[in-house]
Amino acid sequence: MPLWTIHHTPGIFTGDDKKKLATDIADHYEKAGLPRFYVVTIFSETSPDNFYVGGEQAPAGVRVVIEHIARHSADKAGRHRISYWIKDLLAPYLGTHEELHWEFHVDETSEDLWMINGLIPPPARSDAERAWAQANAVSPYELIATESAATG
Amino acid sequence: MPLWTIHHTPGIFTGDDKKKLATDIADHYEKAGLPRFYVVTIFSETSPDNFYVGGEQAPAGVRVVIEHIARHSADKAGRHRISYWIKDLLAPYLGTHEELHWEFHVDETSEDLWMINGLIPPPARSDAERAWAQANAVSPYELIATESAATG
Amino acid sequence: MPLWTIHHTPGIFTGDDKKKLATDIADHYEKAGLPRFYVVTIFSETSPDNFYVGGEQAPAGVRVVIEHIARHSADKAGRHRISYWIKDLLAPYLGTHEELHWEFHVDETSEDLWMINGLIPPPARSDAERAWAQANAVSPYELIATESAATG
Repeated sequence: MPLWTIHHTPGIFTGDDKKKLATDIADHYEKAGLPRFYVVTIFSETSPDNFYVGGEQAPAGVRVVIEHIARHSADKAGRHRISYWIKDLLAPYLGTHEELHWEFHVDETSEDLWMINGLIPPPARSDAERAWAQANAVSPYELIATESAATG
Repeated sequence: MPLWTIHHTPGIFTGDDKKKLATDIADHYEKAGLPRFYVVTIFSETSPDNFYVGGEQAPAGVRVVIEHIARHSADKAGRHRISYWIKDLLAPYLGTHEELHWEFHVDETSEDLWMINGLIPPPARSDAERAWAQANAVSPYELIATESAATG
Repeated sequence: MPLWTIHHTPGIFTGDDKKKLATDIADHYEKAGLPRFYVVTIFSETSPDNFYVGGEQAPAGVRVVIEHIARHSADKAGRHRISYWIKDLLAPYLGTHEELHWEFHVDETSEDLWMINGLIPPPARSDAERAWAQANAVSPYELIATESAATG
């Protein structure tokens, strides 16, 4: 569900940083109860001549676009809490860069317009979701149950 | 209007697959009454070291982000129907890959914040939209009509 | 806040065009009162075999995805006004291309799910936002104020 698209100028992340950050992100959502495989992180390197901040080429820029589907925030305080833990995930990888512009925002979209490997994922906090989380995989049993629910 | 951005690891789609899938997608929306040229499909190849699922590099991954503007779903059942036909479009191109993670979600955005070739597209199911669909092109006549409506 | 992602086929923009267009965009939002550094513009070149319009490879295509966070439109007329000034920004760079498909849409997302350099930006039209705009930078003083507000 959560899709993190990380646009960045060259030299911000090493290969090892990418792997570690993607792991940190997956760890966080897993602790919140989501199946680990829901978390997709895509890095997209963009050269400064294609990356502008305030109309100027950015020598160092990171712009993260996050899409939340399986869980939505209830109110402003909840949204701020989400923003703070996202910041806490990113900051260790970014703090040492001088003159870095780094920014993220989150969009929340409908859980009903979403499928993984051809299945509508089970409802949030359902037994089926817990089974997917435990197996870290889509399971055939849930396939049948979910499709029945969707067409019933 | 519909914008399909298809992030994928190398080797998932041949050049011919891309052309056919883009055609299938346009065919579907055309059957639903939309002008064919509303449908934009962008493929974005991403190497496994930039594509993580659950914190692990994905040997085979497809993550599709779809934006719907001209038509919005009315309810949960309608959203599930949309999800199922999107699945049916994608599955023939993906079924043969072992251990593939493939996932899509749809966001719905405002038809009022949208323009093609400098024109606000005509209202859904209007005569003007049908004329655009038949011509498969923006037409000057509609330009005048639409701008009058927008500024009147 | 505003993030402009400009997908385009090769040959649409020169390097100089990109710089000027990014500057024009930043100028516009700055005139509307936003800090200039809120404006991020990313160009993403896509070859025609990865860019389809209506199922056909696009010899010349521009698809702009814009995300608005700090300011939201109030009604349909406001959204149309926004569409028209976006068109007016883009058109000077696109008008000379034959058979070009160019299209944009805007999504509006929550200002509460957004941070720049680890800070929740100040409320729209606040003194703090004006100070950020004047300095064209995040300021430590605002950091404290904003974090107090968010956690208080």
